[in-house]
Amino acid sequence: MPDLRRDPIVGRWVIIATDRARRPSDHPPAPPPTPGRLCPFCPGHEDKTPREVYASGRPHLAPPDSPGWKVRVVPNRFPALKIEGDLDRQADGIYDRMNGIGAHEVIIETAQHERSMKDLSDGELAEVLFAMKARVLDLRNDLRFRYILLFKNHGRLAGASLDHSHSQLIALPVVPRQVIEEIDGARRHHELKERCIFCDIVTQERKDRVRLVHENDEFVVFAPYAPRSPFETWIVPRHHASNFEGEPRERLAYCAQALGTTLRRLSAALGDPDYNLMVHTNPLRDAASPSYHWHVEVMPALTQVAGFEWGSGFHINPVPPEEAAEFLRKVPG
Amino acid sequence: MPDLRRDPIVGRWVIIATDRARRPSDHPPAPPPTPGRLCPFCPGHEDKTPREVYASGRPHLAPPDSPGWKVRVVPNRFPALKIEGDLDRQADGIYDRMNGIGAHEVIIETAQHERSMKDLSDGELAEVLFAMKARVLDLRNDLRFRYILLFKNHGRLAGASLDHSHSQLIALPVVPRQVIEEIDGARRHHELKERCIFCDIVTQERKDRVRLVHENDEFVVFAPYAPRSPFETWIVPRHHASNFEGEPRERLAYCAQALGTTLRRLSAALGDPDYNLMVHTNPLRDAASPSYHWHVEVMPALTQVAGFEWGSGFHINPVPPEEAAEFLRKVPG
Repeated sequence: MPDLRRDPIVGRWVIIATDRARRPSDHPPAPPPTPGRLCPFCPGHEDKTPREVYASGRPHLAPPDSPGWKVRVVPNRFPALKIEGDLDRQADGIYDRMNGIGAHEVIIETAQHERSMKDLSDGELAEVLFAMKARVLDLRNDLRFRYILLFKNHGRLAGASLDHSHSQLIALPVVPRQVIEEIDGARRHHELKERCIFCDIVTQERKDRVRLVHENDEFVVFAPYAPRSPFETWIVPRHHASNFEGEPRERLAYCAQALGTTLRRLSAALGDPDYNLMVHTNPLRDAASPSYHWHVEVMPALTQVAGFEWGSGFHINPVPPEEAAEFLRKVPG
Repeated sequence: MPDLRRDPIVGRWVIIATDRARRPSDHPPAPPPTPGRLCPFCPGHEDKTPREVYASGRPHLAPPDSPGWKVRVVPNRFPALKIEGDLDRQADGIYDRMNGIGAHEVIIETAQHERSMKDLSDGELAEVLFAMKARVLDLRNDLRFRYILLFKNHGRLAGASLDHSHSQLIALPVVPRQVIEEIDGARRHHELKERCIFCDIVTQERKDRVRLVHENDEFVVFAPYAPRSPFETWIVPRHHASNFEGEPRERLAYCAQALGTTLRRLSAALGDPDYNLMVHTNPLRDAASPSYHWHVEVMPALTQVAGFEWGSGFHINPVPPEEAAEFLRKVPG
């Protein structure tokens, strides 16, 4: 059973997951790319993964864990957290721990081994977002979970251990610190101004246009004012909404369009970079918040986290977001 | 001039340092190791660095920027922040910025190109710590600076761009968020218990001994309860002290002994791993704090920061600190 431990000084949680050491990616050098015929995520290899928890696109009445799907979600074979058991919160002297209870799932975004997320059509990307929404709606019924982080590691430099295009979700029994900080910061702004800070940011970015990359009727894509890494790009709903899983399918289709053009522009600008993608949303079952606003953050894996970043939480970024955005506006999307 | 920008939501600062793009390490693949004859940090090449701000070991009356030194401190040739100018704090709509004012210095730890920090004797390591202390005492007279982060990147995976053994310091006009979080957490513990949380941790680690790696009369070395990465190791004063630069030379000599054995044990256990080292201390000119306690954090660069870590601030660590500490106790130090 993995162990969830809390740093007693700053309250940061870590997952001590001894099983994960068996993952191929944890010991450099990384293995060579997996050919499709050995890939556990390819159609026909459904028995190489745990039993699916979601699939779309298969003909009606086709059995689960058979080919014919378009998007398929399976539990991670090397989960960071385990789904069965009680939290069993305990003190360990001055320290705090609990059992590493949670869900860790893989969203296989396409049946085709050679295509990456940027190659998917807007309609196919929308199907991926629908799958994510469906999984969050299902998992939030489990009252042990407080938060679900949806994320994607694309490429070895970004931490991916398998080539076949996939995203992940981890359902957690605590709200992560990074999210708490965003929620607290947004709440302070709301107390002061009675406005959502993300809505204020959307307004300023749409007015200034220097960091704007793209917009459609429902979403805006821009380089944030204080990016941690070169070409960090955010996708933010233009309407106020605190929860990703509360979005209707029509809106998620607009999100898919914004996400697709973002990934294609980053690929054109930087030569298909490795990247991380994270969805930040309100904690599970919290009431809709007037101050918090869900969004997607995309970070190309171009710089290293080194001593200064580890020690300070500061980041050094050699590319101003205004330059990155100008470049992203010019390349094909 | 670099730009210091504040994320409006979580208050994280970033340095937009366009000059840094010229650094050799920022564009992978990393260049091959620099041979000593081309190394700007080797004796005889003093004209390849900016003029020194500190040196020890040279004969009396020898001129500055000449060979014969044992430890030498010079401004970084590619500084993340600039020393000249005013902060010029400004609003940019809803955003906050200031000029990237600060100091960025390199502590060259030995004149010998082939030796790394772990190869230095306790006496030589103490000279490095004396140099760090001298620089902090000098720079804290500059009232624009609020914090000085001392850190080291050893090896390419840890972000080093030059092989010759060196540490760095960055003097900042703001206190970094990572440090504020530690100070706030320690203050909350002190309000509740009227004890220093670091002193409590030292007491528990010395009693439990399962995470203990080494101790001498003044310092204790242990694997923290909730480590972010495998083999993360902390070096903490056994006495309560909030400021690194307030330590007398006798105590820094004990710190050097603890640091040396830590680096040798990590090297023996993991095969000379790349690592980051950070000194956390109280902000400049703050009164001695009853709740904050300076310390050194060493993190081998064995895992990647990926989407889950970026998105949550959580870390997944496959090695329990109890196992890491047991291993480190057994290898030669």
